[in-house]
Amino acid sequence: MAKIAIIGSGLIGRSWALVFARAGMDVVAWDPDQGTRASLGADIAEMLRDCDLAAPAQVAGRITCVETLEEALAGADLAQESGPENAEIKRELFAKMDAAAAPETILASSSSVLVPSIFSAGLLGAARCLVAHPVNPPHLVPVVELCPSPDTAPDVVDRAEEIYSRAQQVPVRLTREIDGFVLNRLQAALLAEALRLVAEGVVDVQGLDDTVRHGLGRRWAFMGPLETIMLNAPNGAGDYMKRYGGPMGQLADDSAGSEAFSAKAAEVLADAFPALASSAEIRDRQNWRDGELAALDAHLRERRSKD
Amino acid sequence: MAKIAIIGSGLIGRSWALVFARAGMDVVAWDPDQGTRASLGADIAEMLRDCDLAAPAQVAGRITCVETLEEALAGADLAQESGPENAEIKRELFAKMDAAAAPETILASSSSVLVPSIFSAGLLGAARCLVAHPVNPPHLVPVVELCPSPDTAPDVVDRAEEIYSRAQQVPVRLTREIDGFVLNRLQAALLAEALRLVAEGVVDVQGLDDTVRHGLGRRWAFMGPLETIMLNAPNGAGDYMKRYGGPMGQLADDSAGSEAFSAKAAEVLADAFPALASSAEIRDRQNWRDGELAALDAHLRERRSKD
Repeated sequence: MAKIAIIGSGLIGRSWALVFARAGMDVVAWDPDQGTRASLGADIAEMLRDCDLAAPAQVAGRITCVETLEEALAGADLAQESGPENAEIKRELFAKMDAAAAPETILASSSSVLVPSIFSAGLLGAARCLVAHPVNPPHLVPVVELCPSPDTAPDVVDRAEEIYSRAQQVPVRLTREIDGFVLNRLQAALLAEALRLVAEGVVDVQGLDDTVRHGLGRRWAFMGPLETIMLNAPNGAGDYMKRYGGPMGQLADDSAGSEAFSAKAAEVLADAFPALASSAEIRDRQNWRDGELAALDAHLRERRSKD
Repeated sequence: MAKIAIIGSGLIGRSWALVFARAGMDVVAWDPDQGTRASLGADIAEMLRDCDLAAPAQVAGRITCVETLEEALAGADLAQESGPENAEIKRELFAKMDAAAAPETILASSSSVLVPSIFSAGLLGAARCLVAHPVNPPHLVPVVELCPSPDTAPDVVDRAEEIYSRAQQVPVRLTREIDGFVLNRLQAALLAEALRLVAEGVVDVQGLDDTVRHGLGRRWAFMGPLETIMLNAPNGAGDYMKRYGGPMGQLADDSAGSEAFSAKAAEVLADAFPALASSAEIRDRQNWRDGELAALDAHLRERRSKD
């Protein structure tokens, strides 16, 4: 079984630790902050209480916390870095990881904004560095975007893909670096138009969210947007383009851009969610969300097992 | 209880009949095509076999089929028109419906492309006409977009909203006409970027769909895209805009338009779905989709009942 190093064990790192440990892998976690290291055991125990796992004590037993980066990396097949989203910090961290880790250890970053060349270019081991971008929290949402830099060796992406698959995640391979990877590019396009429609008063915030959660999002949750359109035309992809390419293209040309991420939109959102005014209320609702994500994941895994 | 007229009882009209009948409403259906009228009973029986309803015979008993538009409209609280998406045909049909129906009958169109003024402008009863756009099939996906024309009376939208709510659908009110309404505007924005990414080879079709179904679509299926971002910043909407408005806005500016609905994209899609090459295979997969939609709807309704 693989051995995984968790580099940075805050919210995301901790969730990663759980992903690998529940799949039977040995996990060694490190964080530069002494307090974060000290609370890791308790934090993992709390996450395990909210999960419905057969043998939680066994899973917790596979996670150890160490005092140094070097100890964490010793013998690791893959290191999952989840430090702050800051180019300078990631550059420094990857230089240290590259110096300390054995040459065959894969160095993966949870980066959601920075493309991998920003922190791996020029390193001796640039070929073993890549981004493995999760959705938060990874132990409840399975997708992982694997984005190589121009220096990343293809077999490193192969091996990373194999490890994430074994951990029951769903790795998605990008062929090259692109800002926002895939997930946030799609999210940004939809979100801009959504924010514009509510800021202009075409629909209220509740109506906008209802349109997705009770409509558009239903198919996307189990088959994605491209299979969705394949089933919307009786004679295949060419038929779809002939029927809908024109009008859908016009709507896309007319859709909003950066101007939609406005102070006005923020105001409309804040007014629409009076129960999410404090960080404590937001944390409570995040806990509710995580319960729903877990239930939905269980539902979808059960349906897939019937295929 | 309300009485509903189904005007046009093809695929969508038939599904609407089931929506209203299973909620206890009386449904009278009509179609200009004699064959469609003749097969309605059998078609409804088939749909009922795939649904998990307590008393299917009772539901079927609430649906009758009549020979004329006038009989269908007699005494109806609301007429749901689901004819072809063609301005000329809808104009003619709405003129006939407006002449035949009692003044208090709401005339709603399932139109997905045409805004309501196109077929209601100039009618004596323009104030009682609107679009009520469903997702196909409405008996498995609850959202209904209510779009008024400039002539539609606000109390007509109120009454329509009340009827769709009683039928267990989720009505979403638009304040004015806009091409694509809300749902297809959001879909088009995301789809353009999705088609561009696969046509340019950044990710393959399976990876694109996986990114949504195992990632982005998960939250959207139970809370929508706006509540999603409200939970992604610890201090509310203003905090979100400050943190992510810049980079997300850049991605939105950089996202694809009508050029993405290309012959090349159609080719990439067709290659990725070799098992959806014939209309028979597409129909089979639509049946699979409908089963998944029903299971997901049941899951989400059960979760909501626990709130």
